[in-house]
Amino acid sequence: MNQRIFFNEVVTRDGFQIEPEFVPTDAKVQLVDALSQCGYAKIEVTSFTSPKAIPMLRDAEEVMGRIRRAPGVEYTVLVPNLRGAERAMESRADELNLVMSTSETHNLANLRMPREKSFAALSEVIRVVDGRTPVNVSLSTAFGCPMEGDVPQEVVLGWARRFADLGVRGLTICDTTGMAHPQQVARMCEEAQRRFPALQLTLHFHNTRGMGLANVLAAVRAGIVRFDGSLGGLGGCPYAPGASGNISSEDTVHMLQAMDHDTGIDLAKLLQLARALPEIVGHGVPGQVAKAGPSTQLHPAPAYVAELRAAA
Amino acid sequence: MNQRIFFNEVVTRDGFQIEPEFVPTDAKVQLVDALSQCGYAKIEVTSFTSPKAIPMLRDAEEVMGRIRRAPGVEYTVLVPNLRGAERAMESRADELNLVMSTSETHNLANLRMPREKSFAALSEVIRVVDGRTPVNVSLSTAFGCPMEGDVPQEVVLGWARRFADLGVRGLTICDTTGMAHPQQVARMCEEAQRRFPALQLTLHFHNTRGMGLANVLAAVRAGIVRFDGSLGGLGGCPYAPGASGNISSEDTVHMLQAMDHDTGIDLAKLLQLARALPEIVGHGVPGQVAKAGPSTQLHPAPAYVAELRAAA
Repeated sequence: MNQRIFFNEVVTRDGFQIEPEFVPTDAKVQLVDALSQCGYAKIEVTSFTSPKAIPMLRDAEEVMGRIRRAPGVEYTVLVPNLRGAERAMESRADELNLVMSTSETHNLANLRMPREKSFAALSEVIRVVDGRTPVNVSLSTAFGCPMEGDVPQEVVLGWARRFADLGVRGLTICDTTGMAHPQQVARMCEEAQRRFPALQLTLHFHNTRGMGLANVLAAVRAGIVRFDGSLGGLGGCPYAPGASGNISSEDTVHMLQAMDHDTGIDLAKLLQLARALPEIVGHGVPGQVAKAGPSTQLHPAPAYVAELRAAA
Repeated sequence: MNQRIFFNEVVTRDGFQIEPEFVPTDAKVQLVDALSQCGYAKIEVTSFTSPKAIPMLRDAEEVMGRIRRAPGVEYTVLVPNLRGAERAMESRADELNLVMSTSETHNLANLRMPREKSFAALSEVIRVVDGRTPVNVSLSTAFGCPMEGDVPQEVVLGWARRFADLGVRGLTICDTTGMAHPQQVARMCEEAQRRFPALQLTLHFHNTRGMGLANVLAAVRAGIVRFDGSLGGLGGCPYAPGASGNISSEDTVHMLQAMDHDTGIDLAKLLQLARALPEIVGHGVPGQVAKAGPSTQLHPAPAYVAELRAAA
């Protein structure tokens, strides 16, 4: 058996936040409850953003209040600022996931402030939370920015260092728009682990250009054991209409289980949920294994094969 | 610069043969001629199968007669039997690609004869061709059969040995229905190269379960430098409706170029052809980079970013 891998499911946050239609609160709660039975290490349930900024997740308190928490699963939430952190802690989130971009342009475009201002605001959140709830920081566009292009590894690891020095528990290194390639991923993972051996390091990949699982492979080979994934591969990229979004949780689990990694996840249950997802969101989703079936699922031979065999 | 990689484009054979609508001969010739300008090492143009068996490629002679051959590109064709080999050589094919399955059930289902009978027939082809045209043998279902399941590596390499002993120039190890995983690929590639150092070894992957580029990565890391790819990811799997088919040539080239491999291929030209493919076949195709654009293609920042920057 190879290295144990820990999965964080982000579909109800990263996936649902950009859906064109509001996913009803009941459906969100039911999906989180079903995901809780699949064996995830962590579920990113929702985002305590202003309802004006992300109307699709305006029911964050209600969802967090109604889900049935399974023992052993951490329920994390995205938090943009101090107000969000207070709401998240009132909702008894197990972890706060703060976010900023490592690209100045992407931070301005996405969070409407310079990176230094984001860092100051997030530092204040970390100071006020003061260890009462573990904090993870997601560093966006860590493998390239769709507007700036290359984001040097030293820039990414510089921001990582500043958060590490504030005492965060974990960092998620995010390929926000699917620009990473495996060689770049291997370099980043090796260096990040060397510099931050005590931090929980998670990798967040998108499959926008088909490289999602190749990047997972490169990261696993470099020693990474924590990954974000999104059921069905839901969650897109505004710059690539028609392209895939986040890596599909079930496709990633399927590959890693085939490679004899313990993922803790019940793939059959996960595939059931992935197959039900198009009905929840009202459109098809990119995940492949839910369509093709796992590679262990065999098909009957055509009837003439038995006749040919008998004749031989 | 990393290892040079050689691509064989199979869209007009592996892709078009299972299209529901016949692709007009003019369109086939134009596409092969355009592909000839992209920098491929090899193009699998068509199949000299009986028109009854594969009606979509019934124009094999005409296509081979009309294409404009570019210097440095090998034009290979699929050949199922002696009659096909004669037709292919009359058409001045640069290589004959013979095919059989390593799974008995798949060979019975696909070629309607036991493997031993296929081997005997292909041996006869190789004997008659007698080195006048180089021969490649494609071994199907080498990483698993959708009906039988596991195909042991020793079985695959046993068939490989028998063909190697007949003096073929190359072997293509085919993951016909997208069952391979990277660990299995690495093992197979290492062992095949150890046993057959003098043969041209090509890997043929499908992306049916999302693992296509991860498998390419594993093969490259194991030293493989030759790959089949299909423009747009065309070419499917009858067992997985809605699933992806062959790995997309342009997505694979995009990844390997990002990793600093010389592929010899003009990606911009290839993307133009990939974007024109849906019009030729009348439906969308799975390739991602044609939709998302290459990772080097940047997007303008929203207008408010400049204002925010000025205000900061």
